Amino acid sequence: MSRRARKLGRGVALVGAGMSKFGAFPDKTSRDLFADAFTAMTRSVDKGMDTEDIEALYVGNFSSDLFEGQGHIAPIMADWVGLVPKPATRLEDACASGGVAIREGVIAIASGLYDVVLVGGTEKMTNLPTERVTDTLAAASDTVYEGACGFTFPGLYAAMATAYMARHGASVEHFMKVGIKNHNNGSLNPKAQFNKSIRDLMNSRIEKAKQKGEPVPEWSDELDFLKDPKANPVVAWPMRLFDCSPITDGAACVLLVAEDIAKNFSNDPLYIVGTGQGSDHALHERDDLTSIAAARIAAQQAYEMAGVQPEDIQIAEVHDCFTIAELVAIEDLGFFKHGEGYKATEQGLTARDGSKPINTSGGLKSKGHPVGASGVGQAVEIWHQMRGEAGPRQVPGKDIRLALTHNVGATGGTCVVHIYQRR
Amino acid sequence: MSRRARKLGRGVALVGAGMSKFGAFPDKTSRDLFADAFTAMTRSVDKGMDTEDIEALYVGNFSSDLFEGQGHIAPIMADWVGLVPKPATRLEDACASGGVAIREGVIAIASGLYDVVLVGGTEKMTNLPTERVTDTLAAASDTVYEGACGFTFPGLYAAMATAYMARHGASVEHFMKVGIKNHNNGSLNPKAQFNKSIRDLMNSRIEKAKQKGEPVPEWSDELDFLKDPKANPVVAWPMRLFDCSPITDGAACVLLVAEDIAKNFSNDPLYIVGTGQGSDHALHERDDLTSIAAARIAAQQAYEMAGVQPEDIQIAEVHDCFTIAELVAIEDLGFFKHGEGYKATEQGLTARDGSKPINTSGGLKSKGHPVGASGVGQAVEIWHQMRGEAGPRQVPGKDIRLALTHNVGATGGTCVVHIYQRR
Repeated sequence: MSRRARKLGRGVALVGAGMSKFGAFPDKTSRDLFADAFTAMTRSVDKGMDTEDIEALYVGNFSSDLFEGQGHIAPIMADWVGLVPKPATRLEDACASGGVAIREGVIAIASGLYDVVLVGGTEKMTNLPTERVTDTLAAASDTVYEGACGFTFPGLYAAMATAYMARHGASVEHFMKVGIKNHNNGSLNPKAQFNKSIRDLMNSRIEKAKQKGEPVPEWSDELDFLKDPKANPVVAWPMRLFDCSPITDGAACVLLVAEDIAKNFSNDPLYIVGTGQGSDHALHERDDLTSIAAARIAAQQAYEMAGVQPEDIQIAEVHDCFTIAELVAIEDLGFFKHGEGYKATEQGLTARDGSKPINTSGGLKSKGHPVGASGVGQAVEIWHQMRGEAGPRQVPGKDIRLALTHNVGATGGTCVVHIYQRR
Repeated sequence: MSRRARKLGRGVALVGAGMSKFGAFPDKTSRDLFADAFTAMTRSVDKGMDTEDIEALYVGNFSSDLFEGQGHIAPIMADWVGLVPKPATRLEDACASGGVAIREGVIAIASGLYDVVLVGGTEKMTNLPTERVTDTLAAASDTVYEGACGFTFPGLYAAMATAYMARHGASVEHFMKVGIKNHNNGSLNPKAQFNKSIRDLMNSRIEKAKQKGEPVPEWSDELDFLKDPKANPVVAWPMRLFDCSPITDGAACVLLVAEDIAKNFSNDPLYIVGTGQGSDHALHERDDLTSIAAARIAAQQAYEMAGVQPEDIQIAEVHDCFTIAELVAIEDLGFFKHGEGYKATEQGLTARDGSKPINTSGGLKSKGHPVGASGVGQAVEIWHQMRGEAGPRQVPGKDIRLALTHNVGATGGTCVVHIYQRR
């Protein structure tokens, strides 16, 4: 690998961000969701914007091909928001497609070719039955060496979770605590697919049982609820239903501009000061199941470019497609030592009022995971939090100047990391 | 649209190019084909290269998802040629995926982030039965407004061909002459899927009939052969079998580097002096079926960036997925006036020994059309021709200093154009 420091030709700023509601929308296609996100984004631009200003579109999407039978979606999305005849390009790196689209948008502005770029992500997943969604997602594994053996994503991440438990002494309760935290955050996010805390979900089931005159479950607290196999069945041990992100329809958009014109659009722009991306072998070929090398490399590149350290990052949105993934992420990013992420979570350090708030949006777990859109959705949360516009879920008592997003493709074949600065 | 001149932060050169054989390879997956192309590319680098030098991979692919059930192919391709943990990103814009991958490679180097980038394209199509390939390709149309009405690609291009005939007075013979020319070129390309002239194909059928003692067809020449509905059945009138590019497995790779280090790799590098990309509405929504607006825009951008005119271009590889597409292309690119491409073809101007040789490789028609790879395959032909290494199909008597590639996605929802200079 080239050892020279990676630098961009010029700076790039984020001046607008918005997302559709995440959830299940039987009447909407990926293009409708994308238009919703675009509209939300346009409203977030302080000084307003004109669609004519946008010079190109980069759109992240995992597989509208398999989910909707629609390929070549980039020009369709461009058409749907009035961008024709501007260049429109789709990026795909599985669940990291959105993060990679942001990276390509950053690179394109840095190249000097464009000053204003729209980056979006979109995915429409709920039109297929759950088994077919699982099969479709399994196309992001190595289908020759993993899928062919029957592996699906819950199974692949379960292997990582099992290895993590064995090596570090974590228990299933530690995974559950990630889910509890993220649902607590998501309960305050009106755009989240499951915007309820697990305690509220538990209480509403108790209430329902009472109303129906059925035996009332005697759950003492959320953990007790999550340990009940009827309430929270095993999907692939040790990953249970509430350890898995949901199947989601959704889209997100951000507007990127050259640093020197950021103030023409925004009173309070964010600057993308670091970007990193790595690749890795498929999971079956790795030396270590408890860490994602592509994430460590992507993070290292982004920190180096930004000239910051993990301890400088004040909040982060990380890729919690499964609860185990969040523990691995916060270690790979250097926020906590290898094997100590679960202890940090247990101590509340990653909670909204902790020292290192993680996934204040609710994460993929509670906000939802429309795979190609998730990486862009992370940037939308960073936008709200850094500008102090996150409402009831605003991180308390922090003037957030540095934030990070971490977006993983599949089991870590891709990882892309961005660092955002507010000046 | 922004009116400022589009400029890249720094120059980019092509220092290596290679492709797999194009054809039907039942025992090869897209990753195998990609590795074949990579190997061919490495051998073309005059001063040699080290895989370690490569900093990132951009790979064009239309839909390994639908063709092979394999998504997230970028890190797999990276792994297969030894690039892990470098960033690996897939680009998709239907049949323009390869051209778009080249463009993103150019942009990434211009941004200053990388000095050396591998760009590839790969597609494995022949494992599905023909009807399913047709359906899969139809996913690149607008499936809501076109696919749902029963349109497949032969039908969409047939609509363009019909409009072209009606407006300009062209006949089916003019389409056939495009095919005859491209097969003449492809007959000299050992990597072409159909490396036989149509005259040779005709003669071998006559020979076969004689050997079997069957009635010997009395075709007077290629045109007569192509007009025989038994030899050349209608697929979607006026497009017959020999007007359609084939279903192909194949891959291609090029090595891009920053201009200032090009001579470290190559004695005779090519410089990418122009790039342009446009999008358009789907075909059903256009004002004009006889021209592709995205192509005109992409060409205009590329000419402007390169500071050249259509008449300065000495050879071009254009997107002849159907014979009509080549006629539209050579007009959209400004090589010939609107409505006069068919006359120019008839006069032999686009033949290898004509004033403006088009598709010396055989084009998609004869070389084959592994859709995500085709745009990169075009660059491979330009590489050979400009360096005078095209063997028996070398354009005679020309010192080629400026060449162009034109790569279309679907019916023109995307078009990307590149201009190459030899100094």
